[in-house]
Amino acid sequence: MITVNSISNDLKKIRKKSPLVHNITNYVVMNNTANALLAIGASPVMAHAKEEVKDMTGIASALVINIGTLSEKWVESMLIAAKQAKLLKTPFILDPVGAGATEYRTNVCNMIINEASPDIIRGNASEIMSIVKAGTKTKGVDSMESSGSAVESAKQLALQTNSIVSVSGKTDYITDGKNVIEIKNGNDMMPKVTGMGCTATAITGAFAAVNKNYLIAAANAMAVMGITGEIAAKFSKGPGSLQLNFIDTLFNLSEKEIKDIFLY
Amino acid sequence: MITVNSISNDLKKIRKKSPLVHNITNYVVMNNTANALLAIGASPVMAHAKEEVKDMTGIASALVINIGTLSEKWVESMLIAAKQAKLLKTPFILDPVGAGATEYRTNVCNMIINEASPDIIRGNASEIMSIVKAGTKTKGVDSMESSGSAVESAKQLALQTNSIVSVSGKTDYITDGKNVIEIKNGNDMMPKVTGMGCTATAITGAFAAVNKNYLIAAANAMAVMGITGEIAAKFSKGPGSLQLNFIDTLFNLSEKEIKDIFLY
Amino acid sequence: MITVNSISNDLKKIRKKSPLVHNITNYVVMNNTANALLAIGASPVMAHAKEEVKDMTGIASALVINIGTLSEKWVESMLIAAKQAKLLKTPFILDPVGAGATEYRTNVCNMIINEASPDIIRGNASEIMSIVKAGTKTKGVDSMESSGSAVESAKQLALQTNSIVSVSGKTDYITDGKNVIEIKNGNDMMPKVTGMGCTATAITGAFAAVNKNYLIAAANAMAVMGITGEIAAKFSKGPGSLQLNFIDTLFNLSEKEIKDIFLY
Repeated sequence: MITVNSISNDLKKIRKKSPLVHNITNYVVMNNTANALLAIGASPVMAHAKEEVKDMTGIASALVINIGTLSEKWVESMLIAAKQAKLLKTPFILDPVGAGATEYRTNVCNMIINEASPDIIRGNASEIMSIVKAGTKTKGVDSMESSGSAVESAKQLALQTNSIVSVSGKTDYITDGKNVIEIKNGNDMMPKVTGMGCTATAITGAFAAVNKNYLIAAANAMAVMGITGEIAAKFSKGPGSLQLNFIDTLFNLSEKEIKDIFLY
Repeated sequence: MITVNSISNDLKKIRKKSPLVHNITNYVVMNNTANALLAIGASPVMAHAKEEVKDMTGIASALVINIGTLSEKWVESMLIAAKQAKLLKTPFILDPVGAGATEYRTNVCNMIINEASPDIIRGNASEIMSIVKAGTKTKGVDSMESSGSAVESAKQLALQTNSIVSVSGKTDYITDGKNVIEIKNGNDMMPKVTGMGCTATAITGAFAAVNKNYLIAAANAMAVMGITGEIAAKFSKGPGSLQLNFIDTLFNLSEKEIKDIFLY
Repeated sequence: MITVNSISNDLKKIRKKSPLVHNITNYVVMNNTANALLAIGASPVMAHAKEEVKDMTGIASALVINIGTLSEKWVESMLIAAKQAKLLKTPFILDPVGAGATEYRTNVCNMIINEASPDIIRGNASEIMSIVKAGTKTKGVDSMESSGSAVESAKQLALQTNSIVSVSGKTDYITDGKNVIEIKNGNDMMPKVTGMGCTATAITGAFAAVNKNYLIAAANAMAVMGITGEIAAKFSKGPGSLQLNFIDTLFNLSEKEIKDIFLY
């Protein structure tokens, strides 16, 4: 359901419009996330003060909320920003980092989902399964399940919440509850770079900023992640160089490379 | 008004004295900022607890405040530290990141400027213009204006606040309200690395720590930023490698390179 | 007292078991720390909310507390997590970053040590000396003393607190108060990369997660740090590339390299 054309067209739009993506995200990945958004052509901003999140979301083209290092005050701001995004019909993407690892994370995720219905939920298999079924465990922030085992949970979550659910893993699955798009690009070393999933979520925000068909936008984003990671891994000796090469490759990604690497 | 000699002499002093630079800065850039300060030969410390900022500023040779991811408690600490810096005549540099993007940011900047008069204000064109003229807009943290269009605002701000104002852009302008120093070094890819402006502000802190003529110190700092970025860009394939090469180049920067690259 | 075998065996266990290491650490180094733990084969998680730290420590194989950018609420959470670690006999490693630079830091360190006795205390010479003797000064977060001058303080601290004390420097000293293990590997450029000491502490957490002899675990960790840094420095032009090469080298570190580089 996605093509080299749909991926390339969205990418061109991001590079042309340079959409402002407002991130309320975790401390671990802020630098990488900002660099990935700049590399793809978007304009990142990180802001979390309750005094300003409404205004910042108000001028943004997408809102990305990531609960990786959540705490009480940040959760308050996340809700304010999320409600503003819904009000303005600005695309709102949620990354439920570590849902299932602690009750607090799972509860915050469910609360945000209930109170400010995200347009796209993007996580790993354990996280998505934990949201759907209380009691499923996550090992910290790393998945304990293959993405394939989360497909039914993802479909169920998409239908329950009327959102797009995007599950990353060896194969990525993106679903609206009925249709499931599979992305097979990527490289095994990617999970060895911290926050690669968080980058995927931020990039999904950039795509949703330029494409109102969020199923396609989310899938195009994961395709670009996979293609970029696959190219970057070819000349990386380890996760340190992969982190750097990922940014360089994303910055230079051409339609020809998308055509050559994308797995239909 | 600055020369290869003034740049090199300050750089030598930084490397010799290794001044402690106290940063209260944003989450996105802390790692880069610390690495840039280490690379140039300074000793960085990040500390924001209200219980310790007064003491930390007390032992520091410069204070750098950057509001990139501000929130209420951090602003409290920024004020305590800034007032301590003024009391001890320790150079205090303010980076008004994103001023103009939200009312909160603009107001906090103006409040810090009014209550604890910075020695140097270092920002991009949109930020400087927003501080001078309420109502000017900033797109998140990226400038919407060329640096040239901010020169008059910079001069006005310098005179109003009795400070040095340093505006980064294709050309950098550093002014005390009367004199304007222009720095033409740099590379177009630099704004594609997140926090390059924040690094400029921290480096300005290191120069102000060793040179009490803050106009010259601020200009020397921007010259080193531009020269380093220009050299580093030559062997960078994208913003990922530029971020890394910038640190390596800054660490190894020689007087000969300054002489060869500096644009008079 | 440590050998190529003891180092290699612990490393194999980390790679096989991928222990979850719970970090409550500073903003500057979170990305590096997470990447270093992933590179060595562990699974990092960063979590600091008082609502979840008890649960997160509960599922972790080691707890690493680092006070680099401490503040009131974080200190509360550090204590909750540390007490949970003690209750569950989960190894608890403390990095007293900047102890001695401000009274607040020194006091928080002593409070954590008194209330939740760490299994391993890992810091630089100035920090260790400051904890033992109130009034010793630290320059921000960089040591003002050679590691050798801290050996007696380290032994005293180990005996007083019934913990392992690990002091980094040109030579690393790891002691239980009676025995002192010296590690001579490393490279002079390592302190020019911000948070290299914090990485050492996190890696010590990974080793303690798989080896209940904490003296040996802490020494094996410092040996791996030194060996990795020494190899990585060989092909690094500055601290920017060293930061990257360190991660790549750690990811690929082989028993042969340990054998070739380890200084008996």
